[in-house]
Amino acid sequence: MSRPPRAALPEGGRHRLRIGELRTETGGVLPDVELAYETWGELDANGSNAVLVLHALTGDSHVAAHAADPTPGWWDALVGPGRAVDTDRWFVVAPNMVGGCHGSTGPSSPAADGRPWGSRFPFLTLRDAVEAERRLADHLGVGAWQAVIGGSMGGARALEWAATHPERVAGVGVLAATARSSADQIAWGQAQTAAIRLDPGFLGGDYYEGAGPAAGLGIARRIAHTTYRTAGELEHRFGRSPQVAEDPFGAVVGVPGGRGRYAVESYLDHQATKLTGRFDANSYLLLTEALMGHDVGRGRGGVEAALAGYRGRAFVAAVDSDRLYLPAESQALAAVLPARPPVHTIVSPIGHDGFLTEYGQVADALRDSLAL
Amino acid sequence: MSRPPRAALPEGGRHRLRIGELRTETGGVLPDVELAYETWGELDANGSNAVLVLHALTGDSHVAAHAADPTPGWWDALVGPGRAVDTDRWFVVAPNMVGGCHGSTGPSSPAADGRPWGSRFPFLTLRDAVEAERRLADHLGVGAWQAVIGGSMGGARALEWAATHPERVAGVGVLAATARSSADQIAWGQAQTAAIRLDPGFLGGDYYEGAGPAAGLGIARRIAHTTYRTAGELEHRFGRSPQVAEDPFGAVVGVPGGRGRYAVESYLDHQATKLTGRFDANSYLLLTEALMGHDVGRGRGGVEAALAGYRGRAFVAAVDSDRLYLPAESQALAAVLPARPPVHTIVSPIGHDGFLTEYGQVADALRDSLAL
Repeated sequence: MSRPPRAALPEGGRHRLRIGELRTETGGVLPDVELAYETWGELDANGSNAVLVLHALTGDSHVAAHAADPTPGWWDALVGPGRAVDTDRWFVVAPNMVGGCHGSTGPSSPAADGRPWGSRFPFLTLRDAVEAERRLADHLGVGAWQAVIGGSMGGARALEWAATHPERVAGVGVLAATARSSADQIAWGQAQTAAIRLDPGFLGGDYYEGAGPAAGLGIARRIAHTTYRTAGELEHRFGRSPQVAEDPFGAVVGVPGGRGRYAVESYLDHQATKLTGRFDANSYLLLTEALMGHDVGRGRGGVEAALAGYRGRAFVAAVDSDRLYLPAESQALAAVLPARPPVHTIVSPIGHDGFLTEYGQVADALRDSLAL
Repeated sequence: MSRPPRAALPEGGRHRLRIGELRTETGGVLPDVELAYETWGELDANGSNAVLVLHALTGDSHVAAHAADPTPGWWDALVGPGRAVDTDRWFVVAPNMVGGCHGSTGPSSPAADGRPWGSRFPFLTLRDAVEAERRLADHLGVGAWQAVIGGSMGGARALEWAATHPERVAGVGVLAATARSSADQIAWGQAQTAAIRLDPGFLGGDYYEGAGPAAGLGIARRIAHTTYRTAGELEHRFGRSPQVAEDPFGAVVGVPGGRGRYAVESYLDHQATKLTGRFDANSYLLLTEALMGHDVGRGRGGVEAALAGYRGRAFVAAVDSDRLYLPAESQALAAVLPARPPVHTIVSPIGHDGFLTEYGQVADALRDSLAL
């Protein structure tokens, strides 16, 4: 679907809310937290038509275009007038996760002394993010969300909402996400965080007056992006082609690393540069470690027990070619959700990122499953 | 199989050969190259009973125990008296690849001025390695190898031998390796080499008087090792368990990165430390980029044309769960080898590394296929 013409854009806008002091699960104190969020549509008088959409690791609150910001969003074809999440009917809210770098309080925000938090920012969990978002719901006057929906880390956060506040979640939508981060996902996260910390520009996290760890963050992104795609897609698009005007065999004596690049290397360089231009390395570290820590069953007697009290609707989808968030993990999740939802399959050759590009395949099923 | 008792160890030993000046494919000049190699068994009078075994990326020449070095080798149960490669019958030769760091001339070797080559060491291809090994064959008096066998990068080198000197290869054995490195394999290689170069201890490759880039090499190893295993194996072994006496949620304010580790992180730390203690970072870079450049069809009209002239025997095996060297790539290779060998399957839950741990499953088939 193409983006609707501007005249059809829903009411909405960019907002900020001060939610006060947040004491984190592991003992950190953030004295004055702000949440940036966007909204689409209008909340009804009794606060019963609200939908919460939660972004993935490097996402933000701009899920879709609205009148105040008509630039395309990352789930533009899912949210809008007449879309699966119909903004003529639903009041949609999307916060930037606390710890992030797109408006909400994060490591690059000023602390009380006016300097960026940097290394002083506390470790976060996805449950800390839910607590921040609960306060946002209270502020907005939303008693229960009709649906809490997300993909990848956003799906993990949606599940945490359902387990933590089951009475406030009428429906949960989990795309390409799991009940707990696996050993493999932890392994990939470790390499990424280590690369950022290795960058001499990282300076222990207090790099805001310097160049920063763009190279390390770029390596992290290359690793992550490769896990988000498939070997088959990379082979189909790039194979062993050299980048235009470069020669991978053009090395000369005395210039190690002086060889030209393969096209797939240039592509990953581009992905790295795009991210380092828009994302703070400390936020990347913080959210990656929060996601490594994801286990909806932690301290709750395991995943099944944690979700046993959730009596709302549930929608689960997986990308068939996802090599990071395996479809089998989505099956395992669906099997312990009391609603026993089927797992909807997004058919895509590109892997995990299919939840961002091919969710249209499951939009109708999502709407129907969550009574949207 | 257990290692044979010392009394039964084959004759053999560690050797070095000066092979003179090597001009590399891309124009580099190595004036005085030495190859380290090991042998098992005895060459017959007409040099017709020789088998060449080629190591993987971080392997070495110690394929199996022998009288001069009874420590276990990396294919110990494949090579020895009465084994599939029976050293009572075959004269087995295993060189350390030029560019490596286990005896052969590499970046850590002294150049003419007595200082390590470091950044001055030229870019290498697998064909450069074959040229070095051809001179070793000439020196030994081996006209044609009964078999050239290797796994992973060793298998790629074996294929290069078959394509470059088809008349000198009576049989080729390729385990968990492909005809050309894929876009995905290149992508993983790029992240690894970038991590090494990012390390402030790398110093452009001239780090031999300093601490060196152990942290960067360690990250490279973590990435590589994860690709060598499977998500299922990591989950089975480690799941989300914390490392003993550590708490992944034990972070305190002001200590980012101060959290404890998951068991899988400790495991990967251990893999990294093991490698950095035994492997030179420049050699890792050089061999990784040589492998990224692997394409047996390069300059030969493609893979099929490159192998069309190879009339010898062929043995191909893949690990069913390998997520780096995909079984489908082994099928594609077998389909263009003139001998049209079947692809033997190594059944293992651990992925690529199964070629090192579970090759016993195909040892008999390898022996029969290559008339050993």
